[in-house]
Amino acid sequence: MLAAMCRELETLYPEMVRIRRDLHMHPELSFQEVNTPQKVADYLENLGLEVRTGVGGRGVVGLLRGGAAEKESRTIALRADFDALPIQDEKEVPYKSKIPGVMHACGHDLHTASLLGAAHVLSKVRDKLRGNVVFLHQFGEEKPPGGAKAMIEDGCLDGVDVIYGAHVWPALSVGEVAVTEGYAMAAGDLFEIEIKGRGGHGAQPHLTVDTLVVGCQLVLNLQQIVSRHVNPLEPAVLTVASIHSGQASNVIPDTCKLTGTIRCFNPDVRQLMHEQIAKITKATCEAADAVGSLVFHKGYDAVWNHPEQVRSVEAAAMKVVGEDKVKRVEPSMTGEDFSAYLQKVPGAFFFVGVGNPEQDAIYPLHHPRFDGDERAMLITGKLFLHLVWEELG
Amino acid sequence: MLAAMCRELETLYPEMVRIRRDLHMHPELSFQEVNTPQKVADYLENLGLEVRTGVGGRGVVGLLRGGAAEKESRTIALRADFDALPIQDEKEVPYKSKIPGVMHACGHDLHTASLLGAAHVLSKVRDKLRGNVVFLHQFGEEKPPGGAKAMIEDGCLDGVDVIYGAHVWPALSVGEVAVTEGYAMAAGDLFEIEIKGRGGHGAQPHLTVDTLVVGCQLVLNLQQIVSRHVNPLEPAVLTVASIHSGQASNVIPDTCKLTGTIRCFNPDVRQLMHEQIAKITKATCEAADAVGSLVFHKGYDAVWNHPEQVRSVEAAAMKVVGEDKVKRVEPSMTGEDFSAYLQKVPGAFFFVGVGNPEQDAIYPLHHPRFDGDERAMLITGKLFLHLVWEELG
Amino acid sequence: MLAAMCRELETLYPEMVRIRRDLHMHPELSFQEVNTPQKVADYLENLGLEVRTGVGGRGVVGLLRGGAAEKESRTIALRADFDALPIQDEKEVPYKSKIPGVMHACGHDLHTASLLGAAHVLSKVRDKLRGNVVFLHQFGEEKPPGGAKAMIEDGCLDGVDVIYGAHVWPALSVGEVAVTEGYAMAAGDLFEIEIKGRGGHGAQPHLTVDTLVVGCQLVLNLQQIVSRHVNPLEPAVLTVASIHSGQASNVIPDTCKLTGTIRCFNPDVRQLMHEQIAKITKATCEAADAVGSLVFHKGYDAVWNHPEQVRSVEAAAMKVVGEDKVKRVEPSMTGEDFSAYLQKVPGAFFFVGVGNPEQDAIYPLHHPRFDGDERAMLITGKLFLHLVWEELG
Amino acid sequence: MLAAMCRELETLYPEMVRIRRDLHMHPELSFQEVNTPQKVADYLENLGLEVRTGVGGRGVVGLLRGGAAEKESRTIALRADFDALPIQDEKEVPYKSKIPGVMHACGHDLHTASLLGAAHVLSKVRDKLRGNVVFLHQFGEEKPPGGAKAMIEDGCLDGVDVIYGAHVWPALSVGEVAVTEGYAMAAGDLFEIEIKGRGGHGAQPHLTVDTLVVGCQLVLNLQQIVSRHVNPLEPAVLTVASIHSGQASNVIPDTCKLTGTIRCFNPDVRQLMHEQIAKITKATCEAADAVGSLVFHKGYDAVWNHPEQVRSVEAAAMKVVGEDKVKRVEPSMTGEDFSAYLQKVPGAFFFVGVGNPEQDAIYPLHHPRFDGDERAMLITGKLFLHLVWEELG
Repeated sequence: MLAAMCRELETLYPEMVRIRRDLHMHPELSFQEVNTPQKVADYLENLGLEVRTGVGGRGVVGLLRGGAAEKESRTIALRADFDALPIQDEKEVPYKSKIPGVMHACGHDLHTASLLGAAHVLSKVRDKLRGNVVFLHQFGEEKPPGGAKAMIEDGCLDGVDVIYGAHVWPALSVGEVAVTEGYAMAAGDLFEIEIKGRGGHGAQPHLTVDTLVVGCQLVLNLQQIVSRHVNPLEPAVLTVASIHSGQASNVIPDTCKLTGTIRCFNPDVRQLMHEQIAKITKATCEAADAVGSLVFHKGYDAVWNHPEQVRSVEAAAMKVVGEDKVKRVEPSMTGEDFSAYLQKVPGAFFFVGVGNPEQDAIYPLHHPRFDGDERAMLITGKLFLHLVWEELG
Repeated sequence: MLAAMCRELETLYPEMVRIRRDLHMHPELSFQEVNTPQKVADYLENLGLEVRTGVGGRGVVGLLRGGAAEKESRTIALRADFDALPIQDEKEVPYKSKIPGVMHACGHDLHTASLLGAAHVLSKVRDKLRGNVVFLHQFGEEKPPGGAKAMIEDGCLDGVDVIYGAHVWPALSVGEVAVTEGYAMAAGDLFEIEIKGRGGHGAQPHLTVDTLVVGCQLVLNLQQIVSRHVNPLEPAVLTVASIHSGQASNVIPDTCKLTGTIRCFNPDVRQLMHEQIAKITKATCEAADAVGSLVFHKGYDAVWNHPEQVRSVEAAAMKVVGEDKVKRVEPSMTGEDFSAYLQKVPGAFFFVGVGNPEQDAIYPLHHPRFDGDERAMLITGKLFLHLVWEELG
Repeated sequence: MLAAMCRELETLYPEMVRIRRDLHMHPELSFQEVNTPQKVADYLENLGLEVRTGVGGRGVVGLLRGGAAEKESRTIALRADFDALPIQDEKEVPYKSKIPGVMHACGHDLHTASLLGAAHVLSKVRDKLRGNVVFLHQFGEEKPPGGAKAMIEDGCLDGVDVIYGAHVWPALSVGEVAVTEGYAMAAGDLFEIEIKGRGGHGAQPHLTVDTLVVGCQLVLNLQQIVSRHVNPLEPAVLTVASIHSGQASNVIPDTCKLTGTIRCFNPDVRQLMHEQIAKITKATCEAADAVGSLVFHKGYDAVWNHPEQVRSVEAAAMKVVGEDKVKRVEPSMTGEDFSAYLQKVPGAFFFVGVGNPEQDAIYPLHHPRFDGDERAMLITGKLFLHLVWEELG
Repeated sequence: MLAAMCRELETLYPEMVRIRRDLHMHPELSFQEVNTPQKVADYLENLGLEVRTGVGGRGVVGLLRGGAAEKESRTIALRADFDALPIQDEKEVPYKSKIPGVMHACGHDLHTASLLGAAHVLSKVRDKLRGNVVFLHQFGEEKPPGGAKAMIEDGCLDGVDVIYGAHVWPALSVGEVAVTEGYAMAAGDLFEIEIKGRGGHGAQPHLTVDTLVVGCQLVLNLQQIVSRHVNPLEPAVLTVASIHSGQASNVIPDTCKLTGTIRCFNPDVRQLMHEQIAKITKATCEAADAVGSLVFHKGYDAVWNHPEQVRSVEAAAMKVVGEDKVKRVEPSMTGEDFSAYLQKVPGAFFFVGVGNPEQDAIYPLHHPRFDGDERAMLITGKLFLHLVWEELG
């Protein structure tokens, strides 16, 4: 049965490619998605699913009620995100983005087409399903607070027992699949610091509060959060990513602005880093009579994969790509709001290789030349089919 | 005789105010002066002086040959600068600058009108003068390499035995005069540093060369030049006045740019500071595998007032403003290219008070609301008359 | 059979306590062990084992040839270390150390007694053993280069197929056992840095090379190795643990001395840290015309537990202490030269709880009041028995 | 008359040498002087002066009442200090110190003998003096709080109108004399900082408050006091002269101790530096949850020479050594408690050259091989005679 489903998916491959390339040429930014969710909703409706649009804002949820479902039947959710990034597409391919400065540089087009393909196949075997499948097409993944939370608040997980999601992964070759137990992707927050002092002539530092020097001191002092304050067994990053102060060569500026990010897995570490940044900023400014203001922009929580579902993914992957192609990878210090779903229901988020030098698919995510081997859509789709069938077949 | 000359100058005061306000309303930037030198040249020619224009580029030199001069007679030079600054005039006065973004915020209009007034008076007593007077109207003082060097190279000091110059000084009240023996104004250079590294994702610092951190380290390391390397008895300032690195909150930038200035009096200290900046920049970058490039923009040498001429200024000032109004002031860490003249002939550069709260003349030089009590022009003019008469009367 | 062996061990408990307390009262420092190895050798000889002393210097190796061994039979090694630390015993117990300034503060006395007890039991079932057991009593574990390497070079692992070792662990309660797959304990090296400059009067810094400031800069610069240069997913610590410079309050010192340690698991990280320390030390000194010399004292490699043997330990522990007492613990950033054995043969190193507040066994290893619940010796011994029996029973 | 007095002094030269060498061989530490003041008192009493001993503790004051003094007559004070230093004499000369570890390495023996010689000559012309001379032989100059303050409180300046003092100066050749108007020697204070945190294992920095890192940060932060907070026209030095933290290579210490000194002239700068050290210490510690304690040991105020008396010294020196041997020197960043006298009465403190390579008199003050050309005593004595005669002759 599963074999037949996979073959069915393969016949859909040209359609999936067409869908993906259409999305790729017409990317829409996070929280500005209009046509993309419409296309998704139309496709799911054509398959006969119960479709809800505008979920949590711009999300689309398709419900496939299994023909063999009973009152106690389980419901499995599959998720794909569909927003794009404010990056100029620099690839030279026929399906290059037609929208200046906007690009599917994170592969969400591949995710969407994969899930639609799986939905298509599953809709044809609806009668055999002893439970329900929920297709979560999410908006706004790239931009905190993200679409996941809003969709959950709008009920997208109601009745859901387990959830799976996938991300294309250019560091893996096409044909490879990876999944990590426990923490898989990091929590991350952004911060902004503005230091106010007193400007003046470059030749008269004693009449000023030199915020440029304070800002530089702060950057160095913040290094100690990772080097001294965080348990060395807990991965953590603090990066000050921008500093801006002063215009002229001989005028001491009255302001220094910094922005940066923190990444970690453990919520206690995250809390510690917040507290330390606040404390160190305050004290560093006070030492110089400057005044620092600190704002955090909270990002996503860490993605924590549930062990049982990880094993399900591993089992599925061994069948789909073969044992030697199932990789263990280190957790990633990047983030995903798939974490929000996993805080509500058990599940797993896995990585599907799209790297292929022959297709110039060698660039990392968010790179202006990012592209992925489209055959990864077949693998993703088949993994979804296996995972559904394991639950409901 | 001197008393009569001073009375004569007083009758010229309305004209000097008119000249000054005309210049104030029509300021011209350094190295872009066209109308200003023309007005100066016209005025001097009307007085019957031998006038040379385009000196060193845009300078104007007027020669008043004394009627009683002999072959061995001395020649005294008086200097006023006439360029303006790229600052928007924010005063509310009838003579406010009519040129957007350009302003006589350093009082060079007052200098020019003062010197023209003195030239006017001296031209009337030409027969009595036992030597010559050279009027140096200088362009481009605000912007290194400055106009002084070019005018000297173009012969403006040929035959000159002694030189005097004045600067209005808002920290002194109108009616006060100050002069400092030896070093009076600082040497100053600008520097630019660009640090190149390797950018990357904010969550993956280990794959980058984080130039932002290197730049901040450099700023702190440079503090030690003044705190440890310069003789504490030698005044010296090193200010990093701008730092710019990074755009986003989660991308490690590949470049950090800094600009700054150094100030000091002693040429050996200046040399030491240059060498230390170069050494520290190199080593700080090397510690992080970054590459730093350093460019110096050489500014003016320190103004060094000759003791004998300082005493002449003091003597003149005691007569013009009274002993209790002749102040000793500390040297200024700001600069002036009058230093170039003083390296060629003996002379002195003195400060004339223009502060007057009743006229809102309370702002420092280069401030968008700077203004000076115009009566300071009379004092400046009288000081010039005294200094000339002492030499040639 | 195993149950009988365990009961046999329990009857030996008073003897094990006696042995342990005797060792505790007469501790010997690393590389100075004389009486301890003699006592161990005597005990093993009394059991009828083939005993080799002076192995690698001061080690004792006992060989128990199994009565049922054949040519292809396997050999299992069990290891306990027996050296003590230069710490003054501050406990108030009857078996307190009698040697001033020397103490079994790391529980090696407990290790030794546990292994002797297991040897005693195993010697009685020799006929049943289908292979050989090697008892490795190691000297000098506390002090790099450690005794393990020397003993290996002296043949202690010849013919050995698998090895196990245990360490008492005060962070676990008595009755608990923990083992970690893969990296379990960190690699660690020590370093010494001496910075030479030019001293002088505290009022004349410009005539000196102020090594104190250079040393402080270096300490801060070294923070960036962990915060910027090491992959955040790789645990790593760099601690500067001492800095000494200067005597008087007004004399700039010509020397600054620092010592410190690095800890990590991954050999590439270790190499990176060595290189970065060298590079940063060199550049930081060069920026100030100082000269730095850096010496590394190589410590132990990371302990890497082999997965198969970890599962054996887990299986044994579940039987000995029950499933709920088998803990997963994070790897420890401290080190052990058991790593040397694991680089030669597969094996595992596990932690046996000794914490017990009722016995004031609440202090960490190396604390002057460290003590452990002696019943942990029974658990350790039983684990050894299980592991041997699994291999050879 | 003055010429005769100078010739008289020359005849006393062998006696002055004898006195000086006797003092040199029997130096006494500050606040421990017993025999030295006794010898001084004996000598002055033999001259017939009114002598008071134990002044302010261990000082000796001789009063020479002028025979021609009237009620309104002026009184001039001359001061020499007589304490030695805790330095081992490393010279090889017949008059080398006989007291181990104690040495006249600052030339106070030369000062004392010079003043006694002058007293001898003046006692012979007492009848001609139209005023009084006070000979201040001071103890404890080398060690704050110094002897000057105590002697002043004990009345040594009562009735004194003007004061002079001299210091031998090895940077000047014998035969040269220098004096500086205004600030001549710096104010200086010592400070001690102790930072308390929480120690721990070098592999577990997150469980500690790492005071070593805090101490190093503090050293660098303190650099900014001179580089940013003090007016660049005001000489100032802040030197951290010692830092001590930690014993072992792998134990994070719980304490870091620093000592240092500040030097400046302007009392406002001194106050600013105290405040900044306190503020920066507090904030730097707070940033890391450490606790810093700061203690200042107040040293001497800056020596400020009164202009009129400086001119008197210059006039005297021109007669004694000739115009070309009267030097201008920069102020010294070292200190002297002669400042205490100058805060009460006008006066001047001047430097007398003792350098002479032919006599190996090439070492700086406080050097274990310091020595001075003894002919400087004649010059010092003659200068005193001139200064007295100018006032009272």
